[in-house]
Amino acid sequence: MSNRYAVVLAAGKGTRMKSKLYKVLHPVCGKPMVEHVVNQLSGLNLNDMITVIGFGAELVKDQLGDRTNYVLQEEQLGTGHAVQMAEPYLKGKRGTTIVVCGDTPLLTGETLGQLMDFHENEQAQVTVLTSKLDDPTGYGRVIRNEQNEVEKIIEHKDANEIEKQVREINTGVYCFDNELLFDALDNVSNDNAQGEYYLPDVLSIAKESHKKVVAYTTDNFEETIGVNDRVALAKAEKIMQKRINEEHMRNGVSLIDYENTYIGPDVEIESDVVIEPGCKITGDTVIKAGVSIGLNSEIVDSFVDEGTEIKQSIITESKIGKYVNIGPFAHIRPASDIHDQVKVGNFVEVKKSEIDQNSKVSHLSYIGDAEVGKDANIGCGTITVNYDGKNKHKTIIEDGAFIGCNSNLVAPVTIEKGAYVAAGSTITKNVPEKALSIARSRQENKEGYVERLRKRQ
Amino acid sequence: MSNRYAVVLAAGKGTRMKSKLYKVLHPVCGKPMVEHVVNQLSGLNLNDMITVIGFGAELVKDQLGDRTNYVLQEEQLGTGHAVQMAEPYLKGKRGTTIVVCGDTPLLTGETLGQLMDFHENEQAQVTVLTSKLDDPTGYGRVIRNEQNEVEKIIEHKDANEIEKQVREINTGVYCFDNELLFDALDNVSNDNAQGEYYLPDVLSIAKESHKKVVAYTTDNFEETIGVNDRVALAKAEKIMQKRINEEHMRNGVSLIDYENTYIGPDVEIESDVVIEPGCKITGDTVIKAGVSIGLNSEIVDSFVDEGTEIKQSIITESKIGKYVNIGPFAHIRPASDIHDQVKVGNFVEVKKSEIDQNSKVSHLSYIGDAEVGKDANIGCGTITVNYDGKNKHKTIIEDGAFIGCNSNLVAPVTIEKGAYVAAGSTITKNVPEKALSIARSRQENKEGYVERLRKRQ
Amino acid sequence: MSNRYAVVLAAGKGTRMKSKLYKVLHPVCGKPMVEHVVNQLSGLNLNDMITVIGFGAELVKDQLGDRTNYVLQEEQLGTGHAVQMAEPYLKGKRGTTIVVCGDTPLLTGETLGQLMDFHENEQAQVTVLTSKLDDPTGYGRVIRNEQNEVEKIIEHKDANEIEKQVREINTGVYCFDNELLFDALDNVSNDNAQGEYYLPDVLSIAKESHKKVVAYTTDNFEETIGVNDRVALAKAEKIMQKRINEEHMRNGVSLIDYENTYIGPDVEIESDVVIEPGCKITGDTVIKAGVSIGLNSEIVDSFVDEGTEIKQSIITESKIGKYVNIGPFAHIRPASDIHDQVKVGNFVEVKKSEIDQNSKVSHLSYIGDAEVGKDANIGCGTITVNYDGKNKHKTIIEDGAFIGCNSNLVAPVTIEKGAYVAAGSTITKNVPEKALSIARSRQENKEGYVERLRKRQ
Repeated sequence: MSNRYAVVLAAGKGTRMKSKLYKVLHPVCGKPMVEHVVNQLSGLNLNDMITVIGFGAELVKDQLGDRTNYVLQEEQLGTGHAVQMAEPYLKGKRGTTIVVCGDTPLLTGETLGQLMDFHENEQAQVTVLTSKLDDPTGYGRVIRNEQNEVEKIIEHKDANEIEKQVREINTGVYCFDNELLFDALDNVSNDNAQGEYYLPDVLSIAKESHKKVVAYTTDNFEETIGVNDRVALAKAEKIMQKRINEEHMRNGVSLIDYENTYIGPDVEIESDVVIEPGCKITGDTVIKAGVSIGLNSEIVDSFVDEGTEIKQSIITESKIGKYVNIGPFAHIRPASDIHDQVKVGNFVEVKKSEIDQNSKVSHLSYIGDAEVGKDANIGCGTITVNYDGKNKHKTIIEDGAFIGCNSNLVAPVTIEKGAYVAAGSTITKNVPEKALSIARSRQENKEGYVERLRKRQ
Repeated sequence: MSNRYAVVLAAGKGTRMKSKLYKVLHPVCGKPMVEHVVNQLSGLNLNDMITVIGFGAELVKDQLGDRTNYVLQEEQLGTGHAVQMAEPYLKGKRGTTIVVCGDTPLLTGETLGQLMDFHENEQAQVTVLTSKLDDPTGYGRVIRNEQNEVEKIIEHKDANEIEKQVREINTGVYCFDNELLFDALDNVSNDNAQGEYYLPDVLSIAKESHKKVVAYTTDNFEETIGVNDRVALAKAEKIMQKRINEEHMRNGVSLIDYENTYIGPDVEIESDVVIEPGCKITGDTVIKAGVSIGLNSEIVDSFVDEGTEIKQSIITESKIGKYVNIGPFAHIRPASDIHDQVKVGNFVEVKKSEIDQNSKVSHLSYIGDAEVGKDANIGCGTITVNYDGKNKHKTIIEDGAFIGCNSNLVAPVTIEKGAYVAAGSTITKNVPEKALSIARSRQENKEGYVERLRKRQ
Repeated sequence: MSNRYAVVLAAGKGTRMKSKLYKVLHPVCGKPMVEHVVNQLSGLNLNDMITVIGFGAELVKDQLGDRTNYVLQEEQLGTGHAVQMAEPYLKGKRGTTIVVCGDTPLLTGETLGQLMDFHENEQAQVTVLTSKLDDPTGYGRVIRNEQNEVEKIIEHKDANEIEKQVREINTGVYCFDNELLFDALDNVSNDNAQGEYYLPDVLSIAKESHKKVVAYTTDNFEETIGVNDRVALAKAEKIMQKRINEEHMRNGVSLIDYENTYIGPDVEIESDVVIEPGCKITGDTVIKAGVSIGLNSEIVDSFVDEGTEIKQSIITESKIGKYVNIGPFAHIRPASDIHDQVKVGNFVEVKKSEIDQNSKVSHLSYIGDAEVGKDANIGCGTITVNYDGKNKHKTIIEDGAFIGCNSNLVAPVTIEKGAYVAAGSTITKNVPEKALSIARSRQENKEGYVERLRKRQ
């Protein structure tokens, strides 16, 4: 295999996005468009990848890190000019260079690899990626000659009637002989209406010097869509989401409505997981076999173990054990570790807490900065008072403790094994093992009071 | 420009809707169908608009108010009869009259205006709005003569084989020379199977007296869809929703799933707002730049300022400041005013309250009829006890106050600046500035009690 | 009418489902695929139905019960072999046998009945259910002879160019003369690549002995889709959901987004019910006229009476009266009985409780194992303390009682008529009629304490 290089064009502002965010940084399925492109290119055994940055240069660099080299295009003088910026890295090197736009997030490494393979096998100097459309209106047509090589590419507006019949269109992805590319770029002129240096002019230059210019046709036109506004962005999102969802379904995941389920590209899901409509599962989340995720749940960067059932809840950066029961309307915040067979019920918030096996926090509670042991029962309305206005403190509830309803556990405090806190108590000191702790007033019934009260009001 | 009039046909019951609600009052994207029609007509510089009402007359009038005049069609004797009801307002006047059905909510003022302009430019007596369909089965065909004028309109069932090939169909929207219209209506008969007076008969009458009858063809067939049952209603809803959503996307709003986002026609959204799937935003809502609205949120008649983040929450008739953090699972009820950088967390209800800058109500609280100052911290489980069973009272929490968890603030009551309420306290009297207020019992630990208790149970 | 039998093929494992659950048990709209098939067949006046079971035999029997007889296919030797298993019930009987796969959940009784009627009217020995496709690629083609009978069925891969032009395809559903069927099955061989006994071979055998083999063509190709993987399962789900939803819309139910509303096949909904997007309504639920169900609600096995309004809430196995107001973010758990005009507000859980007319539980409460009378007001944060760590006990709140905020009612306990519980009280003993009960400490304000506290921290 010859040397392989890639140039990613990521310098544009993307005015039609109407955004403060630079175009290639707009996310599709949670990842910037340009990152999808770079990820797909990364699988192609490249010797070097050069990303041409301009608008938002620092942010693009921060996003992509050291997976690519960077060159800065200070002025936006056209695609040819953009590729030329890569000269310091690529000029004079032997091999094949693929040029891809940073706003084509749907391109797959598979298609790009096929293009490069085709280019190399054909020993071509230029290969253009094409696709065939039923309605090619508006696209540049690829005109082939008798040798089935590319004769020229002609814009729709410049095409004659016969050329307009051609259904093969230019997707804007190219492979070049690297030496030819940079030689030709020196000869590209900006003598046109926009005053820009156009990359496709390299093809005419190659043709003039009788180089071999060919086309590789992909069936997957959808992959080549470029995103110029938010309507296109939304369509790209849908296509990529469908791609991700279909893969999960083929792997044995049941999506009740695959058009209304939002799964990130890096999520792993095992078989026999059932996901109801309206769920969003993103980040580095892993869902193990047999998990059931009910309507409208949201799971981010979390691990959910086998057989767990989640309903209308939100889980972020946490670890959930096996056969746990969560929700509906529960909120598991970051750094929580919920062990097997725990129940976290409705209107319960858990934050930065560990809850050990078989414990229950069934309703209307806040468990924050806490360690809860096994088999504990946290009554409805229990609050770990972890903040005194200045610092956060820890609550420890040991195995088998029973916390009565509407209790406050004022941290730092420990409820020892098997202890029992009476309902309505505010606990400020540790409760010893198996003790009952109570902090409430005696009930007083004032007969006939209501009528007196009503009169007074 | 000649005088312009509109007649809106809104008298029908709509039996196939199977509803107590009259047909034209069924909403599409939150607004009655007939109101969409009237709104679009309102932009056409009309000298007069007459709405023909019948079933549900008073409700239609209440809905539309004084934007239109009304005539009552007491018996439903056909579309011709319906238009005739407008005689008291229109008969004998010079100008152009457009007739539109109240169940065609998707028609745009743009298309209707083009129809009127065409009619006037052509100096026609009748102009019918047509569209071309790939499959015109079932629709009335518009047959043109050699002068490209309309020869006749023929119903599908009456058409011969050649006429059935015609793809141009009648949408049921017409412009008339107003004098001709009412003269001709006097001659329309009900000598047909249904015994009804049909408006299209005006065309034949005009043709018979050699008037100029022409057709204006719109590409937007979708606009002309009439709603006769809830299936059509649901389709109209989808088409209008798509139209609204695409406009927002073109303006720089990111909709993660534009097919699963429900935005009302009067909502204003600035650029760089991101809206996740399952959200519904309606009424006179304004969303400023950079706001992020998470999964399944609902915002009605509210103002949300720049950079605010909302997750799985509901906001109604309230004002939300900049960089506020709301939710998930928060509920902001009417007449709330949340200032900049406030946090309203999970399972928190705010009602008719003002919360000043930088204060936090992070969890499981009810803030009703309250004024909260700046930099206050409202602990988890805090409840403003605003109702004594007879009247509602006000709670005032001043700047920098700290309310301990599970506290009751029994209104009317004031917690002064920098005061501190201990967790678990029920506060019935004002707390002075920087005082600590406490209202709870001392904790008592009864050793070994649990075992004795278990034996007793 | 002749005798009618059905054989349902439900023995396969369904490897491509990648599931521990056997293929025919995978649900579509909440019901196993095979149950849909059996339900549809049940309307056809069958003398006998035989389900061929194999993988998951016991589970399939548990699911279907005694609506069908069962035969066990121990080894999976092909569809012909599977049908042959039914010999003990069917061999030698006169009549018509329909053979249907258990993985075709979309087939309707209407189409199957038409097939049987056609078969009987034609006095055919074999009738195959066919459909016509624009693109029949991959399907077995049905080749008819000059008498318009079936000449043969040929697999796509074996078809010549002319046969490939044929658009009529085999759906895999057949009617047979029952005697012919079992005679022919004895002659089907497994002399083919897979070594399996194929049911379609019965057609060639019938043709060889000059029997009448015909085809009945359905327009509803969609119905005949077989589910082999989760992608097909998801598509079947969408088609069935659309079918269910359209029926409700035609009956007068408004679905704001029919593509994002999930209604089970047994749910009954009256007219003028409005259902917002993202709702899931399943089981034996009945929704009476005029109910409004807001965004993302979930209702299972419940009865909801007229005019009730539900927002973003979950209701399970409960009964809800008229003009009740539920949610948002409420959770009604099983065995609850909410009477007319009750309000259950945000962050409220009700479990196994009865709440009588006109009472309010507006916020942040847990009502479990309780009986609440009429006109009671349950303050925010009220908790029925129904569990003492060992047993569950009952709370009774009588008519007109007023429960102050953040109260605990420690069951068993009764709050009698018109009694008033002060906010923040933990009530352990009964409260007499019209008494005020209070159980809280006196408030103490410690002036200047906050500054001293801050210094100490």
